[in-house]
Amino acid sequence: MKNLAYYNGKFGPIDELTVPFNDRVHFFGDGVYDVTYVRDRVPFALDEHLDRLYNSARLLDIRIPVSKEEFAATIMEMSAKVDSPDQFLYLQASRGTQPRLHTYPEDMTANLWIMIKPQKVKDVFTEVKAITAEDTRFFHCNIKTLNLIPAVMYAQQAQRAGVFETILYRKPDRVTECAHANVHIINQNNEFQTAPTDNLILPGIARAHLIKACRALGIAVREEPFTLEEMMNAKEVIISSSSAFGLRCVEIDGQPVGGKAAEQLRAIQQWVLDEYNDTTRA
Amino acid sequence: MKNLAYYNGKFGPIDELTVPFNDRVHFFGDGVYDVTYVRDRVPFALDEHLDRLYNSARLLDIRIPVSKEEFAATIMEMSAKVDSPDQFLYLQASRGTQPRLHTYPEDMTANLWIMIKPQKVKDVFTEVKAITAEDTRFFHCNIKTLNLIPAVMYAQQAQRAGVFETILYRKPDRVTECAHANVHIINQNNEFQTAPTDNLILPGIARAHLIKACRALGIAVREEPFTLEEMMNAKEVIISSSSAFGLRCVEIDGQPVGGKAAEQLRAIQQWVLDEYNDTTRA
Repeated sequence: MKNLAYYNGKFGPIDELTVPFNDRVHFFGDGVYDVTYVRDRVPFALDEHLDRLYNSARLLDIRIPVSKEEFAATIMEMSAKVDSPDQFLYLQASRGTQPRLHTYPEDMTANLWIMIKPQKVKDVFTEVKAITAEDTRFFHCNIKTLNLIPAVMYAQQAQRAGVFETILYRKPDRVTECAHANVHIINQNNEFQTAPTDNLILPGIARAHLIKACRALGIAVREEPFTLEEMMNAKEVIISSSSAFGLRCVEIDGQPVGGKAAEQLRAIQQWVLDEYNDTTRA
Repeated sequence: MKNLAYYNGKFGPIDELTVPFNDRVHFFGDGVYDVTYVRDRVPFALDEHLDRLYNSARLLDIRIPVSKEEFAATIMEMSAKVDSPDQFLYLQASRGTQPRLHTYPEDMTANLWIMIKPQKVKDVFTEVKAITAEDTRFFHCNIKTLNLIPAVMYAQQAQRAGVFETILYRKPDRVTECAHANVHIINQNNEFQTAPTDNLILPGIARAHLIKACRALGIAVREEPFTLEEMMNAKEVIISSSSAFGLRCVEIDGQPVGGKAAEQLRAIQQWVLDEYNDTTRA
């Protein structure tokens, strides 16, 4: 099949599957999700993505009714049926189905969603541009929820500006993350500096692998917020997500940035690419 | 029929209607809504609710493809088919349908949703209790979006505490609104004090009618934020929404509140009730 979707036990092409009117996702965006990629039929870091999905659900009191192992088995069974060996793998849990009401029964169990379609991760050596915008999101950004209207707004702003991402800052000037990626710098001390995983950013899995790369390469890691000014003057600015492991950002708001630690950044990128190749080569 | 739902031209009982997997509401909660009540087959303030719905959509760049008059005609046609003369009337617009992607085409048009089921507004003279919680929502609370996970959390907290609402405050102590209602006070100067309609609260339609009531009754209105302390010491605390026009709050966080301007509050409540009766009596 070209693509395949799953909703609570029903399977079908993405264009044909439908969802009951009373799924709480329709009225409250009441759910969590996660995304990874399958390469040569092997999903990258599936355990980590399932861990994060179940953790997001737990933080919102959403009860996923199957074990991670059972969920993974359904995913792999579906993945095998999709023609392309390189796939976008989307997982979701909405809180449940009931007539619209803000409150929910304490024993409600989640509806499970899976979507698989052909797609590859982005070449890690791609160079990108960005703009900045004030971060006006809620204070639960550590949870990967479906309340993504601000992310939609920021992504659309980036598209209209002809750039790859919108980098967000909390007033007055603390850089947090992007519309749908984390952002890091190589600072003046040649450290890999990244915001700590508090409630203002998503604990990115690509971020964790970049940290792992730095540790393996002997590059110091500093988990501490940085300002807009520190970012604009950084040796390198790096944007990472599960579809783009660590891209070099070369321009922000029309100003050139980075380019002062090219070799160090390239070593990090090569390390995460090698790890990806090693762990997803069938 | 007992109830009736509508999605983009399809009609059916709420339990039977379904929504395409690729509606953007599923992945981003990407939509807006509004709610009013029908009494004796007459909807209350439908024009105001449609105005707010279309305004919410405009603020998010969501394009509703029909005029307010056309939308109202569909609503009234459906309303007539539902057995009960007293109805909950729910309107929604999601941004559109496309394979999952944060960005959307500039010419995308919205999917329209309607849901009608039997329900009455709450007796305006009901006395209620509340708890407080820090307001951790995004900074777009003036838009009636479907990104309602925090509202769900606050409503569930209220239910677990056995109270009617959770009253929210922005740190350190500015009262904003509730999980799904506005909150006002009668202050020490006998003014009806309510937060201004900035980006921290929804411009409540019940709130607007309470202000109208005060003006008609010669009660001064002050649109200025108040603190937790001012609320706890206020002469009265009033919670309002489209399902509960102006309820007296008698206890917050286990402490008795209000009860010091009972006659004034009762006059306001009677005024909004009379207006409701006058405008919805067939």
